[in-house]
Amino acid sequence: MIGRLNHVAIAVPDLEAARAQYATMLGADVGAPQDEPDHGVTVVFITLPNTKIELLYPLGDDSPIQGFLDKNPSGGIHHVCYEVDDILAARDHLLTEGARVLGGGEPKIGAHGKPVLFLHPKDFNGCLVELEQV
Amino acid sequence: MIGRLNHVAIAVPDLEAARAQYATMLGADVGAPQDEPDHGVTVVFITLPNTKIELLYPLGDDSPIQGFLDKNPSGGIHHVCYEVDDILAARDHLLTEGARVLGGGEPKIGAHGKPVLFLHPKDFNGCLVELEQV
Repeated sequence: MIGRLNHVAIAVPDLEAARAQYATMLGADVGAPQDEPDHGVTVVFITLPNTKIELLYPLGDDSPIQGFLDKNPSGGIHHVCYEVDDILAARDHLLTEGARVLGGGEPKIGAHGKPVLFLHPKDFNGCLVELEQV
Repeated sequence: MIGRLNHVAIAVPDLEAARAQYATMLGADVGAPQDEPDHGVTVVFITLPNTKIELLYPLGDDSPIQGFLDKNPSGGIHHVCYEVDDILAARDHLLTEGARVLGGGEPKIGAHGKPVLFLHPKDFNGCLVELEQV
């Protein structure tokens, strides 16, 4: 069912410092910051030859990643995103198998403009999993 | 400098349950467990079209991931691994830029039989980074 690893998302406490680390220390292709006010984050994409790293930084007063940074002040890996062809079929299969889909189970439009769902970390080894329909 | 994302490693508290989750719930291509006694882990590779997920489970009495699981009983993302062409050149560049290389800075032969180094998580947003020469 799952296809490519679309991205690994890393929450960071200092976006410019993180951009500099990846650009200068690791010599990666680091994009410009993009504000995503509907999602409460500023995002930086790091383009690798086979996938992307997304740096996430809180935007606004109600950012969904502020709590994560409060618990992990140095930052940390926030989630992994797998691609699926049909997000409703994926959801229905997961529910049948006993997995928990966050947020009521209706796909939302994610930061890339595509339908996404998040799965409960307790069902996946403490790892928050995003599914994105591509 | 960094190339492909070689893998994302997830430490898991129950290897068979994790294998079943990825095979049955997520429909992924899940390999057989491989004991790596020199590294204190049993590894399961999940092959995605563009990269790999590595499930890590402690092996033996002195496993390097036991402490991580003690702190994260549900499991969690343990590290990301980026490929480099020349690990000694990568190390020297990182040291010049002020990054900390773990374990004295000499590459060791990793679980894939290739030279690897680990970078200090505090220098990379709380994220343990492995570099593997390919």
